Amino acid sequence: MKKFDINEDPHRRYNPLINEWVLVSPHRSKRPWQGQNETISTIELPEYDPTCYLCAGNVRANGEVNPPYENSFVFENDFAALKQEAIDFEENTEETFFKTQPERGISRVVCFSPKHNLTLPEMAVDGIVNIIHTWQKEYTDLGNVDYINHVQIFENKGSVMGCSNPHPHGQIWAQSSLPTEVEKTHNNLKAYFDKHGTNLLQDYLKEELKLKDRVVVENDHFAALVPFWAVWPYETMIISKRHITKITEFTEDEVTAFAAILKQLTTRYDNLFETSFPYSSGIHQAPTDGEAHPEWQFHMHFYPPLLRSATVKKFMVGYEMMGESQRDITAEKSAQMLRDLSDVHYKNK
Amino acid sequence: MKKFDINEDPHRRYNPLINEWVLVSPHRSKRPWQGQNETISTIELPEYDPTCYLCAGNVRANGEVNPPYENSFVFENDFAALKQEAIDFEENTEETFFKTQPERGISRVVCFSPKHNLTLPEMAVDGIVNIIHTWQKEYTDLGNVDYINHVQIFENKGSVMGCSNPHPHGQIWAQSSLPTEVEKTHNNLKAYFDKHGTNLLQDYLKEELKLKDRVVVENDHFAALVPFWAVWPYETMIISKRHITKITEFTEDEVTAFAAILKQLTTRYDNLFETSFPYSSGIHQAPTDGEAHPEWQFHMHFYPPLLRSATVKKFMVGYEMMGESQRDITAEKSAQMLRDLSDVHYKNK
Ligand SMILES: O=P(O)(O)O[C@H]1O[C@H](CO)[C@@H](O)[C@H](O)[C@H]1O
Ligand SMILES: O=P(O)(O)O[C@H]1O[C@H](CO)[C@@H](O)[C@H](O)[C@H]1O
Repeated sequence: MKKFDINEDPHRRYNPLINEWVLVSPHRSKRPWQGQNETISTIELPEYDPTCYLCAGNVRANGEVNPPYENSFVFENDFAALKQEAIDFEENTEETFFKTQPERGISRVVCFSPKHNLTLPEMAVDGIVNIIHTWQKEYTDLGNVDYINHVQIFENKGSVMGCSNPHPHGQIWAQSSLPTEVEKTHNNLKAYFDKHGTNLLQDYLKEELKLKDRVVVENDHFAALVPFWAVWPYETMIISKRHITKITEFTEDEVTAFAAILKQLTTRYDNLFETSFPYSSGIHQAPTDGEAHPEWQFHMHFYPPLLRSATVKKFMVGYEMMGESQRDITAEKSAQMLRDLSDVHYKNK
Repeated sequence: MKKFDINEDPHRRYNPLINEWVLVSPHRSKRPWQGQNETISTIELPEYDPTCYLCAGNVRANGEVNPPYENSFVFENDFAALKQEAIDFEENTEETFFKTQPERGISRVVCFSPKHNLTLPEMAVDGIVNIIHTWQKEYTDLGNVDYINHVQIFENKGSVMGCSNPHPHGQIWAQSSLPTEVEKTHNNLKAYFDKHGTNLLQDYLKEELKLKDRVVVENDHFAALVPFWAVWPYETMIISKRHITKITEFTEDEVTAFAAILKQLTTRYDNLFETSFPYSSGIHQAPTDGEAHPEWQFHMHFYPPLLRSATVKKFMVGYEMMGESQRDITAEKSAQMLRDLSDVHYKNK
């Protein structure tokens, strides 16, 4: 019988953060592509766009005027998915198929820069430091609202990721419940901590830093790696080397180091297919319920959809929706490709 | 304090099949859209396309020639994600962050018709009956392979769902493990059965058939409904009225009734935006491990991505990936819209 070769044979890998598996089919990378091609915009964007609702000084749909901001700018989402109003609700305690609960929360938009045509990898480290300070302030302010127990910071980049405006920006949805994916992660981090007395992601990172084959880039305080159980072709995760439960625990050195690794990672993403690399990214960190959360470890996920070029993405569809996430290229191969790329942005070469 | 109104206030709904929540934001339906528009192909397709690798008599990439088939035609996927070969593997019993297992399986393609330009809603009920017979045969044959414990039947329809060829076809991925989503469903069906001695989906269907407000269409043997916990804007589920664990238990009357409801549901989908409606669909049913599975209930999921027109889809991105699935329109409103549509295909009007 053929001996198992992880670089060749179909296999499943286990994700201990969410207790799910991913199907890996390394032999299938040579599949020809006849499917849908994404369009890439090659239009050079201006630094200021009079029709953009995020540019400084412009009027938004609801009539508000953006201030002449110079760094980052935060405002309440004009079409928020959550509302702040308290709602009177009697919970049905009987078993029912129609289990529901009102959800209260606050949605904000964070403009990363007044410059319409910038993206994270093209910003200076200073500018990114400023965004991290903004995230810290928002995590604190929103977390201090009495009914808010979770603050989700995220970015959708690129039209293929549902982003409707190229102006560099992210969002924050803060709410009373732990959302599904966070609750799964929470439960698994907690079970590990209760069993071992240590932090799952800190222990995992130590092993990855010894092995090195899934690490993309690292500095004194952070590492960016393709997790062993990555689902998206070039999925990565940034983890701090010190046990940090939330972004407000960063030292100023760590803020700078986080900015630096964000720039390095996103630059490599852009360099991979010489295109402005689309992704959704998001920070997972301790809930804001006022408890200590030693089981938690600050980390940031990047889920980029591109598969083999600027125009061919991975579709998570039939089998993936009904069955299980599936990938062709292995995490090790993706990490190596990203690792071998330059830190200099292709536009500046 | 304002009293909770499920048609107006943001809330979460619980999905008992997979133990996850969805965030519903009914007030947000009026959000303007500035994001990516999907392209829709308006090219009239020919009944036979000499360049199509699924048309009868044509040569596929690997040199094989398709037979001159008249109804459906099944072949092994030329670029299968799974391999049939047995693999020698020693499981690591220690706790590890690198938990992996080889996975054995068979992937097949099922052509629904030799006619290149047909889709399910445009086929006659007879033609769909033929597809169901094919699914029954494949479920039996693949399920009988000793190492196969799960047979996933699914269809990706439309280029926006990663389908690379408009020729009507679906796929079957059969494998040794229960894939993640199926295992979740299995565990929840099992827990319910152990507690109540009855079937979760049968009990749920009974309540929906009393309430009627999420039912789209029904006949003597099946109902198609928008589940209370639907995630996609026009997500539906078909459930049999009789307790059936797998497709091979259908009577011939049930086969015909299932074909009829498939045609009715997909016709309404096409009529909604007067376009060939994209979706991923898939059948969830009992594992093929040789055990009886009274906890299981045959059902078919439809996950269509369109949101508000033929060109604007719902993006499950940043918040959804990091946090929780989110929808604007309520399940009740979607069901009503689909219910109010005609059974006559818009092309035949
Ligand atoms: O097998 P196909 O049609 O080439 O590929 C399509 O369906 C598969 C199963 O859902 C997915 O893994 C692919 O991402 C998708 O493009
Ligand atoms: O809030 P936006 O940018 O309008 O919308 C985008 O991000 C949201 C949060 O991930 C998603 O719910 C939307 O589907 C997506 O288009």
